[in-house]
Amino acid sequence: MAMATNRSKADDGPDDTAQFAASHSVDAFHHGGFYLVQPEGKGHRAGLDAMLLAALVPDDAAGRLADLGAGAGAAGFAVANRVADLRVALIERSALMVECASRSMELPQNRHLASRISVLQADVALGGRARIAAGLADSLYDHVIMNPPFNDSTDRTTPDDLKAEAHAMTDQMFSQWIRTACAIARPGGQLSLIARPHSLAEIISACDRRFGGLQVTPVHPRPGHNAIRILLTAIKASRARLALCPPLFVHDGTERAFSARVEELSNGRASLKR
Amino acid sequence: MAMATNRSKADDGPDDTAQFAASHSVDAFHHGGFYLVQPEGKGHRAGLDAMLLAALVPDDAAGRLADLGAGAGAAGFAVANRVADLRVALIERSALMVECASRSMELPQNRHLASRISVLQADVALGGRARIAAGLADSLYDHVIMNPPFNDSTDRTTPDDLKAEAHAMTDQMFSQWIRTACAIARPGGQLSLIARPHSLAEIISACDRRFGGLQVTPVHPRPGHNAIRILLTAIKASRARLALCPPLFVHDGTERAFSARVEELSNGRASLKR
Repeated sequence: MAMATNRSKADDGPDDTAQFAASHSVDAFHHGGFYLVQPEGKGHRAGLDAMLLAALVPDDAAGRLADLGAGAGAAGFAVANRVADLRVALIERSALMVECASRSMELPQNRHLASRISVLQADVALGGRARIAAGLADSLYDHVIMNPPFNDSTDRTTPDDLKAEAHAMTDQMFSQWIRTACAIARPGGQLSLIARPHSLAEIISACDRRFGGLQVTPVHPRPGHNAIRILLTAIKASRARLALCPPLFVHDGTERAFSARVEELSNGRASLKR
Repeated sequence: MAMATNRSKADDGPDDTAQFAASHSVDAFHHGGFYLVQPEGKGHRAGLDAMLLAALVPDDAAGRLADLGAGAGAAGFAVANRVADLRVALIERSALMVECASRSMELPQNRHLASRISVLQADVALGGRARIAAGLADSLYDHVIMNPPFNDSTDRTTPDDLKAEAHAMTDQMFSQWIRTACAIARPGGQLSLIARPHSLAEIISACDRRFGGLQVTPVHPRPGHNAIRILLTAIKASRARLALCPPLFVHDGTERAFSARVEELSNGRASLKR
């Protein structure tokens, strides 16, 4: 993955565009295959997690894909750039990130993708009628992908009350998000997600009677170290049993560069087969 | 692991011993570190699974260990042979396997271990007073290990009704066995088990509020293939989070011999650190 951070300098739009651009960067992904507008200095910046998540969608996928909690749209754009037969809906609650995603769609560098990508501002945690009213219709999507925010107490230095709130959110996050994923996926549709290993219990529990055929790929920073992420795919209404797939190593041995496998996956040149 | 199968030929005991020996073998483990009497031609024969399970108990363990569903006692003997400060209780329901374990304790080759190993015929699935009456006392053990039988419908060619019964048993087996493990372990005691990957959901669920700090080591037949086993350790009453540890590969590449790591683990020359 080459992620050059290029502040947008060619901006000749009206004042608000100039103002927006001043606090944002335009970053290249997939060796320049697409670009993302991202806020500088705050919030989550897309990187390897989003690219590996995108690699879970098969090359021959077709139909509709929903990227839940899409942020700036990194994973959704990455799938769209590799899989030509998918239309991608970016679902995001934050107005700031929706603005970023919309600006990304207008970039001339993304012209080849823009017609297949849409943005919907909605809260993934909504249920029942509120979800449908927000535009998340039942059984519509062939693929649902998610990279839920990692915001519990051990990862942030926030005041204790905020920590507690964030932790409470995380405790229910996967069950809410996977409930939504199941509702909007067609039978046989694929769920793909990236998470931290300790979320495995909650994810497996949330998939119960919704998604089966879970396939878990541990992601280790390098050989001999505990996994830092899991990649997981599952099929709506499948009754197949859980499998533990061959691990990925971000780096080989003591190398600082990505391993060849992670390099090709993160640059849209390969996908992880189910 | 060197598992030479040597029919007992030096038998000079009474008639029933001769009759017993005729249908049993005496097999070497840990390069001759100990021997096991096992029935020939029926039931589960101990092998790599039991040796890897034993490798989960730390070198400096001390106190009491219970081997639940011990069979012929392979894992319990293997721990006793590596860890000098442990007393090992083999818990087994089958009279035939209890007989094998008792005969193993009488073998002259096992004289260095016999004083630290005991056998108890009891059903691990018992609960409450029945469990205690069977000799499985509360909070007694520093370590509990288990290698539950793999006897569900996809693994055996049995009549359909037997299949169904076996499958039903398996569905509750881990919850029953882990409940028993928690009851008989002291607070802070370690649970160690080997299972198939698809049992992960049931195991995680059964550990809830009983054991924490789960550490899962996938065992792959060789690089690039799905895991065939998981090794799991957990600590009674711990609140630490699940970790996915570096995988084990039984074979390197296309080699037929065990990998160096599996070779040393299965022969009692190393343990898997928590």
